[in-house]
Amino acid sequence: MIPNDLIIVIGREFGSGGRSIGHKLAQRLSVPYFDKELLKKAADSLGFSTDIFSMADEKRPSFLNRMVSQAYGLADGFSKGTLSNEGIYEAQSNVIRALAEKGGCVIVGRTADYILRHHPHLVSIFLHSPIEKRIKNVISRGEGTIPGKCKDFIQKKDRSREAYYNYFTARKWGSASNYDLCLDSSVLAEDEIVDIICHYAEAKFKTKK
Amino acid sequence: MIPNDLIIVIGREFGSGGRSIGHKLAQRLSVPYFDKELLKKAADSLGFSTDIFSMADEKRPSFLNRMVSQAYGLADGFSKGTLSNEGIYEAQSNVIRALAEKGGCVIVGRTADYILRHHPHLVSIFLHSPIEKRIKNVISRGEGTIPGKCKDFIQKKDRSREAYYNYFTARKWGSASNYDLCLDSSVLAEDEIVDIICHYAEAKFKTKK
Repeated sequence: MIPNDLIIVIGREFGSGGRSIGHKLAQRLSVPYFDKELLKKAADSLGFSTDIFSMADEKRPSFLNRMVSQAYGLADGFSKGTLSNEGIYEAQSNVIRALAEKGGCVIVGRTADYILRHHPHLVSIFLHSPIEKRIKNVISRGEGTIPGKCKDFIQKKDRSREAYYNYFTARKWGSASNYDLCLDSSVLAEDEIVDIICHYAEAKFKTKK
Repeated sequence: MIPNDLIIVIGREFGSGGRSIGHKLAQRLSVPYFDKELLKKAADSLGFSTDIFSMADEKRPSFLNRMVSQAYGLADGFSKGTLSNEGIYEAQSNVIRALAEKGGCVIVGRTADYILRHHPHLVSIFLHSPIEKRIKNVISRGEGTIPGKCKDFIQKKDRSREAYYNYFTARKWGSASNYDLCLDSSVLAEDEIVDIICHYAEAKFKTKK
């Protein structure tokens, strides 16, 4: 029922468990899982530069830098080495497209929902969770935030993801209408979320409307 | 597994099928269904004025009117008869709370997700759909829009709902993080959507996290 080349892309608030749920989903569907680290490895094996996933990791582009460059007629101020931010994004997009052509997979982050929006077998997910639950989650993962600063740390990460997403896609990060399915990941157990996503994917490609 | 007093609240883009899906969901769960018309009837039977659901039907409050009133130190410019917009909203909220106390039900619109946000057995849904699908849907429902103006009509309705929701709740209408579950209603058949929502509700109240 689920097509072999099903691509599940996951956008997520920081600390909402996207990585863990993505892993479980990939296991359930017996397909590869990709996040930043694994996209880097995949880039290498596909012959792309592995640096492209370190250069612009869902960080807020420097608008000021860009404005200055434009005002002075310089090359794009985002440039790092020989690639502009747009160039890095395009190179990342090429890796993501190449992987999607190889067959079904789960991809977390990096605006994959937008890059693959015309893929015929795409299911696009957004995971979110109340800030208190995410603080608990981040602390339990042992991510080295300064005690008492975890909320700021999470909110800063979210703002970066939002700015990166909105800049490159001209959509609004976390706005329901971008995605097939959005879920509060704190409400259900991870296996239940995986069940619902699989149920949705099955229904999506069974139903002719 | 599903609690007897389960309340399902549905926010929705105009034309995304919220009413029809809400009806099917209520049938499936054997609980009452409420939208504007039925809330009006319920208000009557609960002893509230039936006018309160006609007075402020998810319409954009008149900010200009308000600003003028405030500048001149008048009573709130929203006032209609003896009730301000806030007063009407509060009265509607009381009807919704009274219904939720009577037992399980499905409520469409009117910021019920916000009004009932502390209810222990709430499932909050947002339905959306691409504009082209909604145009088709609205035309097939025979809603009397001027030919060629359907898109404008839908977008105006959405803007009104958005302004109403954002004004009274201080949240962002259609932002995934407000809701338990958001779905693109054009992707699945209505019965499939009802399945997914029921599956979610069952999991929500089965799981202890």
